[in-house]
Amino acid sequence: MGTLATEHLLNIEDLDVAGINAVLDTARSFKEVNERAIKKLPTLRGRTIINLFLEPSTRTRTSFEIAAKRLSADAINMSPSASSTVKGESLVDTAKTLDAMDCDLLVIRHRYAGAPYIMSQNMRAHIINAGDGKHQHPTQALLDLFTIRERFGGFSGLKVGIVGDIAHSRVFGSLAPALRLLGADVTAIAPATLLPACPELLGANHCHKLDEILGELDVVYLLRIQKERIEQSPFPSLREYARLYGIDRGRLERMKRDAILMHPGPVNRGVELTSEAADTAANLLLYQVNAGVAIRMALMYLLLGGDRDGSLA
Amino acid sequence: MGTLATEHLLNIEDLDVAGINAVLDTARSFKEVNERAIKKLPTLRGRTIINLFLEPSTRTRTSFEIAAKRLSADAINMSPSASSTVKGESLVDTAKTLDAMDCDLLVIRHRYAGAPYIMSQNMRAHIINAGDGKHQHPTQALLDLFTIRERFGGFSGLKVGIVGDIAHSRVFGSLAPALRLLGADVTAIAPATLLPACPELLGANHCHKLDEILGELDVVYLLRIQKERIEQSPFPSLREYARLYGIDRGRLERMKRDAILMHPGPVNRGVELTSEAADTAANLLLYQVNAGVAIRMALMYLLLGGDRDGSLA
Amino acid sequence: MGTLATEHLLNIEDLDVAGINAVLDTARSFKEVNERAIKKLPTLRGRTIINLFLEPSTRTRTSFEIAAKRLSADAINMSPSASSTVKGESLVDTAKTLDAMDCDLLVIRHRYAGAPYIMSQNMRAHIINAGDGKHQHPTQALLDLFTIRERFGGFSGLKVGIVGDIAHSRVFGSLAPALRLLGADVTAIAPATLLPACPELLGANHCHKLDEILGELDVVYLLRIQKERIEQSPFPSLREYARLYGIDRGRLERMKRDAILMHPGPVNRGVELTSEAADTAANLLLYQVNAGVAIRMALMYLLLGGDRDGSLA
Repeated sequence: MGTLATEHLLNIEDLDVAGINAVLDTARSFKEVNERAIKKLPTLRGRTIINLFLEPSTRTRTSFEIAAKRLSADAINMSPSASSTVKGESLVDTAKTLDAMDCDLLVIRHRYAGAPYIMSQNMRAHIINAGDGKHQHPTQALLDLFTIRERFGGFSGLKVGIVGDIAHSRVFGSLAPALRLLGADVTAIAPATLLPACPELLGANHCHKLDEILGELDVVYLLRIQKERIEQSPFPSLREYARLYGIDRGRLERMKRDAILMHPGPVNRGVELTSEAADTAANLLLYQVNAGVAIRMALMYLLLGGDRDGSLA
Repeated sequence: MGTLATEHLLNIEDLDVAGINAVLDTARSFKEVNERAIKKLPTLRGRTIINLFLEPSTRTRTSFEIAAKRLSADAINMSPSASSTVKGESLVDTAKTLDAMDCDLLVIRHRYAGAPYIMSQNMRAHIINAGDGKHQHPTQALLDLFTIRERFGGFSGLKVGIVGDIAHSRVFGSLAPALRLLGADVTAIAPATLLPACPELLGANHCHKLDEILGELDVVYLLRIQKERIEQSPFPSLREYARLYGIDRGRLERMKRDAILMHPGPVNRGVELTSEAADTAANLLLYQVNAGVAIRMALMYLLLGGDRDGSLA
Repeated sequence: MGTLATEHLLNIEDLDVAGINAVLDTARSFKEVNERAIKKLPTLRGRTIINLFLEPSTRTRTSFEIAAKRLSADAINMSPSASSTVKGESLVDTAKTLDAMDCDLLVIRHRYAGAPYIMSQNMRAHIINAGDGKHQHPTQALLDLFTIRERFGGFSGLKVGIVGDIAHSRVFGSLAPALRLLGADVTAIAPATLLPACPELLGANHCHKLDEILGELDVVYLLRIQKERIEQSPFPSLREYARLYGIDRGRLERMKRDAILMHPGPVNRGVELTSEAADTAANLLLYQVNAGVAIRMALMYLLLGGDRDGSLA
């Protein structure tokens, strides 16, 4: 099992094809560990992993915390409240302070794009981007890739449609380039108001009508709609969105026989999927969550421990 | 040491007499472990225990977290703030998500009665109810039973009076049926406004006047008064409550020689007990807290590990 | 390596010269541990350390949590929100409750001076004061002493100026007496409005003009300014403060050749130091943070484990 060519996972582009495959292969081993009664490896004993979450996210934070603990690392959560951010420490000062505490790996979620990069420039620690603004969310992309690869055996020639608020989605920002790199054909599907101003710069095909392309897709990836954003936007309403882009029984039936539905969770039932469609898709969505812990363990292992400890126990 | 017949502790009724005794006996062993300098057993190494507290409770959460760590489990705290609950994930989705992360045991406190049951229907993990709405709080009942058994050697024929807001108390909801099952005689003592509309359905005797029965009781169990609730209720005032149902020096002197005072904590000094009475009762109240950690260790051990690892170290 | 003569670190005065030296010497060993890839010692396995932070402080809390985990203790964070403090448990009740859970060591930060002392009177656990109101912050003083000793080899005859809001500073409250005990010469430097009413009771020299004394100082210790406090005070403005007491390029050049700048962090750039001066001082400020983890490990080790386990691994 090789190590990664990168020190950090700031953007999905930090990984080349070999790197992505190393992460996915390692994650498969950890997924087996996670099915044991005793889900624990000594691999990262004595390493300090800090989860710095400056946006609320119990789900992703929990996934990273479980991953760190199963590898026996010392996991520290930091979720500074507004009141302590008031103290006015800059991101650079935070980076240097955590570095001075001999942090080995920093997982950071931040509402500003580029925050993980700033940390990487000011710390000796390895950095994993757990979501930065509307920019990237590369561990989500990796768990999605894991899920797709397990289902289809590979990526070449797969037709993937990503549906929703393309313009503001950090999930799209990481997933689309990775899929293209791996040989899949990616189409962004959204009304014009949820596409960027120059959609031809997306590095993906785009179209406005889900129904025109639905029957050709192998993977229908539904982005989570931020209800607040929709209601402030020129887009008519959630109801209109659901009617044009939501998956209901009719659209389920028009999908290819082997096609799969994916979603980064949590689902807005009645928006991205009807409750019935959500139930149909549930097993795979939970497979994504399950893969998420294994992917995060794999990244921690490869970034921190792969070169020193040799092999998985 | 046997295992439990139940997979979960949702309600105290999940345990029969043998089950309750198994928990209390196991807790006694763990209580001894907790008196050592090195309070640590490898029993639950590699198990993932999630503490999901959706009502604020540092005291109970801390007791569960200490219990999990002393058994070497990986303990994860989740206390989603209002802001992240806004994201609108349903309880069922949360259950399935945590299940997909291979959680072994979920401890849940929730303001809605029945939330632990919903989790149990949607997870493979074992569930412990750490308090659900006005319904049940079974680990509190077990630590109370432990305390009573240590003091009196058993339950048969004991006269227990439970005083306070019977209608809204989850502590009463778990403790009263357990005491009756074990052969104690239980009386609910409260003004009519703090009893349910049909007190004959309580499964316990009831009376309105503490002073009429005080001299006969072996255990005087004082429920914590939620001040907010009293002040909004038809009940006159906290002062009136304290005068009629609070324990002061006079009532202390009228109690039976061997009778004990219990309280789930924290005490409202000047309401359920005068400060003087609280000081008199303090040792036993702290004994309850101490037993609480051991009871929670026992439950974690019996639900998760008892059948696999054989015996206590 | 000896043990400490004190059970607690409530005030810096709990340590005599031998005690301070024992802490600094032990910290030096732990600092080396922290430079290893595997930063972990089994020393405090099975001990329960509770971090009770009732003032927001992610930085200090994280330092203590890392220290506890690197010594293999079970570390529990408690940061009761306003909502749970509303439940009205007194500090004494909290102390007794945590004691009943067999807590071995309590780290407490509280906005009221004397809170750590109250805990020590009501618990069997060892107590470390992590900052109480405007009173003391002894672990900060110890990490500062560590830094000064590493730089100058000792304290005797050193001239130390402490600049800022002397009247309200818990950092000054611990650092100044320790420095005097160790033979340094301490001067409090502040406008009259930020000195106590009777500065001759400070146990330190005092002066109003930084520039009069700057050229004689070996250590220029800049206290963090609480911006809120300044703006409500008779002191003109932050800008005025920065002009009279802030370190800029000019003052940097007028310092002695070997003098050092220290600050407890986080720095208000543009107030205590210009951004340029902060960058010049950065390495030493981060050395202080780094020493902080080692100092806290040393205290935990000496208070809890030094007498039992004999020696460092």
